[in-house]
Amino acid sequence: MNITHGFKRALQVNADGLATVFGDRRRKWRDLGERAPRLAAGLASLGAGPGERVAILSLNSDRYLETYLAVAWAGAVIVPLNIRWSRQENEDALRDCRAAILIVDKMFSGVGESLAAALPGLRLVYADDDDAPAGAQHYEALLARSAPMPDAMRQREDLAGIFYTGGTTGRSKGVMLSHDNLMANALNALSEGLFPSEAIYLHAAPMFHLANGAAMFALLLSGGANVIIKAFSPEAAMASIEREKVTEVLLVPTMIQMTVDHPALPSHDLSSLTRIVYGASPISEAVLDRAMAALPDTQFCQAYGMTELSPIATILHWKEHIGEGRAKGRHRAGGRATLGCEVRIVDPSDQPVAPGIVGEIVARGDNVMMGYWERPEETARALVGGWMHTGDGGYMDADGFVYVVDRVKDMIISGGENVYSIEVENVVAQHPAVVQCAVVGVPSDEWGEEVHAVVVRRPDAQVNGEEIIAFCKARIANYKCPRSVDIRDVPLPMSGAGKILKRELRKPFWEEKERRVN
Amino acid sequence: MNITHGFKRALQVNADGLATVFGDRRRKWRDLGERAPRLAAGLASLGAGPGERVAILSLNSDRYLETYLAVAWAGAVIVPLNIRWSRQENEDALRDCRAAILIVDKMFSGVGESLAAALPGLRLVYADDDDAPAGAQHYEALLARSAPMPDAMRQREDLAGIFYTGGTTGRSKGVMLSHDNLMANALNALSEGLFPSEAIYLHAAPMFHLANGAAMFALLLSGGANVIIKAFSPEAAMASIEREKVTEVLLVPTMIQMTVDHPALPSHDLSSLTRIVYGASPISEAVLDRAMAALPDTQFCQAYGMTELSPIATILHWKEHIGEGRAKGRHRAGGRATLGCEVRIVDPSDQPVAPGIVGEIVARGDNVMMGYWERPEETARALVGGWMHTGDGGYMDADGFVYVVDRVKDMIISGGENVYSIEVENVVAQHPAVVQCAVVGVPSDEWGEEVHAVVVRRPDAQVNGEEIIAFCKARIANYKCPRSVDIRDVPLPMSGAGKILKRELRKPFWEEKERRVN
Repeated sequence: MNITHGFKRALQVNADGLATVFGDRRRKWRDLGERAPRLAAGLASLGAGPGERVAILSLNSDRYLETYLAVAWAGAVIVPLNIRWSRQENEDALRDCRAAILIVDKMFSGVGESLAAALPGLRLVYADDDDAPAGAQHYEALLARSAPMPDAMRQREDLAGIFYTGGTTGRSKGVMLSHDNLMANALNALSEGLFPSEAIYLHAAPMFHLANGAAMFALLLSGGANVIIKAFSPEAAMASIEREKVTEVLLVPTMIQMTVDHPALPSHDLSSLTRIVYGASPISEAVLDRAMAALPDTQFCQAYGMTELSPIATILHWKEHIGEGRAKGRHRAGGRATLGCEVRIVDPSDQPVAPGIVGEIVARGDNVMMGYWERPEETARALVGGWMHTGDGGYMDADGFVYVVDRVKDMIISGGENVYSIEVENVVAQHPAVVQCAVVGVPSDEWGEEVHAVVVRRPDAQVNGEEIIAFCKARIANYKCPRSVDIRDVPLPMSGAGKILKRELRKPFWEEKERRVN
Repeated sequence: MNITHGFKRALQVNADGLATVFGDRRRKWRDLGERAPRLAAGLASLGAGPGERVAILSLNSDRYLETYLAVAWAGAVIVPLNIRWSRQENEDALRDCRAAILIVDKMFSGVGESLAAALPGLRLVYADDDDAPAGAQHYEALLARSAPMPDAMRQREDLAGIFYTGGTTGRSKGVMLSHDNLMANALNALSEGLFPSEAIYLHAAPMFHLANGAAMFALLLSGGANVIIKAFSPEAAMASIEREKVTEVLLVPTMIQMTVDHPALPSHDLSSLTRIVYGASPISEAVLDRAMAALPDTQFCQAYGMTELSPIATILHWKEHIGEGRAKGRHRAGGRATLGCEVRIVDPSDQPVAPGIVGEIVARGDNVMMGYWERPEETARALVGGWMHTGDGGYMDADGFVYVVDRVKDMIISGGENVYSIEVENVVAQHPAVVQCAVVGVPSDEWGEEVHAVVVRRPDAQVNGEEIIAFCKARIANYKCPRSVDIRDVPLPMSGAGKILKRELRKPFWEEKERRVN
């Protein structure tokens, strides 16, 4: 099966059904059936032949979804670029994959022109509602002047996309995902009940990221409807959910927190929203509680994974967030292996460990990436015996629930003890004055690393570091408690995927240490 | 993914959950985790190495399911034999696939001994509760004395099973299905909501047949519970549904009719039954109405397909049986393409036809068979450009619903069993008094269709219908034999190309039925 499979099915079974909504523009599957094969032909005429790379740097839009489809239809390879990246990071990625085409929207028009100037041979396509800048082809003109081409019918083992990852921890790597990888993940999600054909899905998370991509590819298979907003804001999300009677949305926990704490929440009817899938990072118990209270008609479901797994490895269903599941503490788990993905925990010599023992989370299945683009050594290190080594630490209980105790790289080692920041964050977040928090390791002459908390305070609340530390000491082991607390009134720095940029929080401490050492 | 994938997942997430119920014997997944790897090793010790064929001829039982698992675990190939076949038909299949092992239960013990005597090298395994006959290994002893072996971890493109299907040439063909074929079909079914992990499924249809197999493989992936009865009877099915709180069952329409018309129905509590999946033939409106009245808590769902499609091509959901769907006549359709299977209608030159035009139903997807065992020419005829040519005539409406109007190959579906008229014709034609014959399906209130033979007698010979039927019964399975025979003295109506016009022979019977209905 390939990415275009579900599109053709949608044209067969639901041609007059809603495919995309973007602002006031509504398109049926029939419309996309007219447009995508033309756009594919247009892109092919610019160099997007089979296996060639087509990059896109854009806020969310209906054209973004159309581009995913058309690139697959042409047999080319999509390269969605991170909208939070610097111009240089994007240039590195475009050079790395030798992209033939770069598609940009109005927001990235200037960057696109600059990149096209720096990269001879890169064709620039402008995908927005106004006129294209000089030197760029207009998306709509390209589409209008091209005769529809037949589906290139890529095989399932063919490369479908390169998704750059790891920008927050150094030089990024291109994760190569085949049509099969993406469709296996879609079927895994669908077989667990997510993103069915009757879904009306809100693209609120960025479309370049595979957390949202997982939903999008599943919907391209099931034929559900796509409501798209340019970028996440609580106001835009709530307005779209109410207006379009959205049933499902993927959000990262920070977006959930911003929505449920938003003053305009009570004035919106969000009762159509049957499910919020959250991922990219665990949700704190305090935010989950507020979310459940604010959205009584909505079920929550966690997906844990990583781009290299296309991206889902485990799913935590709603029933584990409430009642008996919650009493057993399962709401703190990442979930259980999806139906099509094998997950286990291994020790440093790659042997499976017993239930309850922390080790590295590894996964195997048709959703495991082909490898890193032109990085055979890193591929060989990541994929051992067909198992993707996630780099995340975790344990599995006797019922197969995977608890992600920390990203291995985020684990704090203080005085020889392992401190998992998520555990500390869950405690800090329960403090009534706390809106958002992050816990990181900072250098300590005495302990190697010390636990440090960064806290965003409620606008109307008063709290100081001592109170936060005392709050923690009443609840968790002393060595896990923050030694220092930084109280802030502005949101924490976020990645394009909505993850808190802990690197940014740590940086001043480690730079300070550098200065002292040198 | 392979067949053992879900089994290992069940051991990880639900080891203490119910795996099988057969009579009073209840086994958990943990028990199967102990047993299947031992049985696999035992079978391997008898010759079931990777790729070797292991046949089974048995009524339904928990050991039948265990056998499917253990054969896959050993890396061997399962060959489930048709319990309605004659001894000779089974011998032909065993010879054709060169089976290393034949597993039989008490019912087929005698046939098994006879087959083992005729086929040197075939090892006989006895899978029942009493002692094995001389010359047969006992299943339980084999299991007990074998140390568990590791999963052979077959690749998805490896052959998993050979499923014999009635051949139009009189000899049956072995449909080769890979692990991927069977798992793709399972994911297709699961992604449409069938056979989820919380299902308690009743194996009432025969386990050798892939209609029931579709459910079984899906449950082996999702980890649902398997309630198994030896063979279908309305009484046994109703008793099991009530006792085990069965939630799903696959039945052929004849079984539904027998159940809903059964006098004991009102004395059983069948309210746990949320869904009946029916297949092999459409359901008559009269039976559907009676079933809906008798089982108000149960939804009906049709699956259409064939063994060569592993086996599902289309699914007709409950909503199409009621309300607006029914008003549009969609309850007479076979459904729409599953999420993973592409379906279209083509003309004799293999070009797609417009909606509403009758042509041949063809299907493409990961569920399409590898081919017919050692029959490259028939494989090439069936699989053209990756499309399985079903031999069924049908049309598709503008909403993608497939209506099966005729079996192009003249297959008769009687009580859920496929009868290929050419096979019966070959037998009838062997009778010394027969000049010419044609076998057609005629309407039957009990069986959907009944086998009817039209025979042209030699001018000098005497023969009657009873003699023709007795002649057939001595040579082929009972269900394939004509129920009625029309003896004629004039040639059968022929087309210009010299083909018998079966349509003309059928017409009076179906017109008679029309008159009765209207």
